[in-house]
Amino acid sequence: MVIRNIEEAPMEPVQMAGAEGTTMAVMVGREDGAPNFSLRNIRVEAGGYTPRHAHDYEHEVFIISGEGTVLLEGSEQPVRAGDVVFVPADEEHQFKASGAGLRFLCLVPVHRNCGEETPGS
Amino acid sequence: MVIRNIEEAPMEPVQMAGAEGTTMAVMVGREDGAPNFSLRNIRVEAGGYTPRHAHDYEHEVFIISGEGTVLLEGSEQPVRAGDVVFVPADEEHQFKASGAGLRFLCLVPVHRNCGEETPGS
Repeated sequence: MVIRNIEEAPMEPVQMAGAEGTTMAVMVGREDGAPNFSLRNIRVEAGGYTPRHAHDYEHEVFIISGEGTVLLEGSEQPVRAGDVVFVPADEEHQFKASGAGLRFLCLVPVHRNCGEETPGS
Repeated sequence: MVIRNIEEAPMEPVQMAGAEGTTMAVMVGREDGAPNFSLRNIRVEAGGYTPRHAHDYEHEVFIISGEGTVLLEGSEQPVRAGDVVFVPADEEHQFKASGAGLRFLCLVPVHRNCGEETPGS
């Protein structure tokens, strides 16, 4: 049975080029037998950011707490606790944290359309 | 661009047999063009519950706030804010709310393995 709390998750630094002050833990993913999508727990410290990039799969994001912005469709929008953000495939995006930092869930599909494993799932 | 806050979502009663005191809003789903999975916002009032059932697709759940239990693998486990729960396909499950009620995200795939639309996605 998988019941895991985000406060006890082993957060690992996101090593991807263009990321700063960002850590992540996969809460449910391929290794748990998740067949379709993976739920990741992400923290960005104040002043940090996720990579500014685009890829061929979507994100669904839930802002748990904190404050910051998301770059989407070429403009930065503020985000706050309780916001749900849909980042379609091939859309450039970046999350930045301010204030006390930003905590969010970021869900990705387990498989790309071509059948390959989605990175980080 | 889809940025929606759970506090402003139009919650609709869950009419499914066996549900009590439960409302839901699809925050991102098929109607938004989500290709793989759907993010739903669920509230269960104190004393309420979701249906006790099983189905041929999985849930990934994030407890936002409140208190209650999840029935999984035949036993009831307490859940609390920050918990992530994986409910595999074909596993009987039920969420019950106590105290001030329970708020959670419940994600489902958009398509069943057979290619049919997943209900409520």
